[in-house]
Amino acid sequence: MAGLKIFNSLTRKKEVFRARNNKVGLYVCGVTPYNVTHLGHAFTYVFFDAVMRYLKFLGYQTTYVQNLTDIDDDILKRAKKEKRNWRLVVKLNTRKFLADMTWLSNVQPDFYTRATDHIQEIIEIIKKLLQNKAAYEKAGSVYFHVAFDKDYGKLSKLTKKAMLLIANERGNDPKDKNKLDLLDFVLWQAQKPGEPAWPSPWGRGRPGWHIECTAMALKYLGETFDIQGGGSDLIFPHHESTIAQSEFATGKKPYVRYWMHTGMLRYEGEKMSKSLGNLILIDDLRKKYSANIVRIFLLSHHYRDIWEYFEKDLKEAQKLNALLQSVWQAHSGPGEDFDNSRYEKKFFRAMNDDFDIKSALEILQESARQILKNQARKNITGAKSLFYKAFVILGLKIEY
Amino acid sequence: MAGLKIFNSLTRKKEVFRARNNKVGLYVCGVTPYNVTHLGHAFTYVFFDAVMRYLKFLGYQTTYVQNLTDIDDDILKRAKKEKRNWRLVVKLNTRKFLADMTWLSNVQPDFYTRATDHIQEIIEIIKKLLQNKAAYEKAGSVYFHVAFDKDYGKLSKLTKKAMLLIANERGNDPKDKNKLDLLDFVLWQAQKPGEPAWPSPWGRGRPGWHIECTAMALKYLGETFDIQGGGSDLIFPHHESTIAQSEFATGKKPYVRYWMHTGMLRYEGEKMSKSLGNLILIDDLRKKYSANIVRIFLLSHHYRDIWEYFEKDLKEAQKLNALLQSVWQAHSGPGEDFDNSRYEKKFFRAMNDDFDIKSALEILQESARQILKNQARKNITGAKSLFYKAFVILGLKIEY
Repeated sequence: MAGLKIFNSLTRKKEVFRARNNKVGLYVCGVTPYNVTHLGHAFTYVFFDAVMRYLKFLGYQTTYVQNLTDIDDDILKRAKKEKRNWRLVVKLNTRKFLADMTWLSNVQPDFYTRATDHIQEIIEIIKKLLQNKAAYEKAGSVYFHVAFDKDYGKLSKLTKKAMLLIANERGNDPKDKNKLDLLDFVLWQAQKPGEPAWPSPWGRGRPGWHIECTAMALKYLGETFDIQGGGSDLIFPHHESTIAQSEFATGKKPYVRYWMHTGMLRYEGEKMSKSLGNLILIDDLRKKYSANIVRIFLLSHHYRDIWEYFEKDLKEAQKLNALLQSVWQAHSGPGEDFDNSRYEKKFFRAMNDDFDIKSALEILQESARQILKNQARKNITGAKSLFYKAFVILGLKIEY
Repeated sequence: MAGLKIFNSLTRKKEVFRARNNKVGLYVCGVTPYNVTHLGHAFTYVFFDAVMRYLKFLGYQTTYVQNLTDIDDDILKRAKKEKRNWRLVVKLNTRKFLADMTWLSNVQPDFYTRATDHIQEIIEIIKKLLQNKAAYEKAGSVYFHVAFDKDYGKLSKLTKKAMLLIANERGNDPKDKNKLDLLDFVLWQAQKPGEPAWPSPWGRGRPGWHIECTAMALKYLGETFDIQGGGSDLIFPHHESTIAQSEFATGKKPYVRYWMHTGMLRYEGEKMSKSLGNLILIDDLRKKYSANIVRIFLLSHHYRDIWEYFEKDLKEAQKLNALLQSVWQAHSGPGEDFDNSRYEKKFFRAMNDDFDIKSALEILQESARQILKNQARKNITGAKSLFYKAFVILGLKIEY
């Protein structure tokens, strides 16, 4: 199992992955189900699905947790707009999201957990933060006091000024008079008129966004676990704040040993996002391409890259899928064994180099071409082993 | 990982499962793709899918091999009847089979291997058997000499007379004059006019049925591996012969440490089989039921039972699926934790008792009822853990 290196967003270095035992805990920040799933989501979740498959392949017993942020400002806004109960908005979008993930051949996470299932756990953590003086209560809301944490910023490495700018863009209320510091973030939000709320020691309210992930990660993976991942737009404020509150709640460092972040998918030079209305949906793609093709397409971009959507790349993925399938389908010639060990070594070297699946796919492509060129004369049965393994690791299906 | 017991068909006893290390090799005899997949196949492959999932859950690193018998008398007969190339018959039926397995949420085996990809490996094993005098060549065919193996019959525990009767029913040619003993079985079959053939030291021909599995199991799992499984109609002659030829070829005993066989699905008192024309197809069921429902339906019969198909049992499975889903969907009350540990223990006790999934499902049902009864008053978040685990182990999807 030696050899795997992971680029740790916290240290900004490729580090040798050392598990503490045979078990690996993986937490990936899931969706807020207030709208459809788009290709940007698929990029992140297909990649982490491959990460989890590769860790299993290496022999680790993985526990994969992915949350559903099923209470949030966006959901409530959407519910208002659609004149629907917010629970129904969550239900319909989650149902679609789950169907998309299944269609993409993603393995269902071991724990697909909803924030609203963990209100009591969230309250317990907030109580601890209050006890530890890392948080304060004001007018029925509880805030994490950023000034209390001299390490705040260690993940994003941003200045306080830059942090504040981004936080305000992403839901932080700059006019909230209850805060001691503008950068402080909400752990428990006092009920606003007409909004759903749960009872708490500070009155009725609902959890803040960041605290949800802490509660679910700690519950299912323990106070220190191996890998947390998500889109790189989550680095600040979400993951920065998750680290702060988790480490102050448990008193244990590190909360997470390796942080992994996926890059961004752009469309005509812009971020693919709901607000810009430039979404490529899974539904659009499944009319024209198989799940294998969409997976290969997504995985053929390095996970940390910022990349541009081009339909021609789907056509390339289609060709590559056909090539890989034709290796499975090929019949051996009667001669000596075709030696594929060079490609097998290169494939695993790429996988071990921070999950460089983009390169691993190029190596498979070259190996496939060589095997097919030699199939009439040589025994290619042994050489196919790499393809069986690659299909398991990348979650590709045999098409016959 | 302690505690798992497996009913070993070889000893006819429940034995404590002891892995030799953290790895478990599992070989399941696959289909001969000359016809559609029916519910009897699904019963076997869904069950072994759950076996593999449970072994993974227990922390074993599994390697799951399933073969495709893509050359066989039945395929050639079918090709003749349909006036199609035999390769095309294989391709069309395999494609359908793979689609059915995917729809059923079965995990694709690590090695989905075709017999005709292993002609050279098969020839090498036959050479060894000839060297070891366990086989003889006659007129371009090679036979395993059953009289040479005093243990022949150790799996099926049948008399020679009974064996011969069954062998003749299942493809043995009682008029084959080349055999020293009527029970001897073909390892390499000399080419018959118009049939496909491969070159070999004994002239052109094709492999016998039994030797294919030996070649593929030894190649991917080694000379001794952990579990081989299949339908109980494979015990004799297929698995009996597989043991004999494997152990004489390698000189190592045992070839397989635990033999597992699934019971039979009957329809109106008869075996469900192509020849009787009483098949329930996956296609029929998917029009009316979800994959979850079909899985629960199949897994609610003990794997070693002979059971009868009743549509009302699908309706029961539908209700049970709805009940399990409603636990995932349920919202906690504000009170103390609901203690589900009694059901969790019972669930794993059933799973460890030779994969008694039928009982495990009954326990889930009872636990689900109790949780739902208590949801308004108690915190059921912790109690849901059993359901997350059960979904992973049984391959059920969250429906929302």
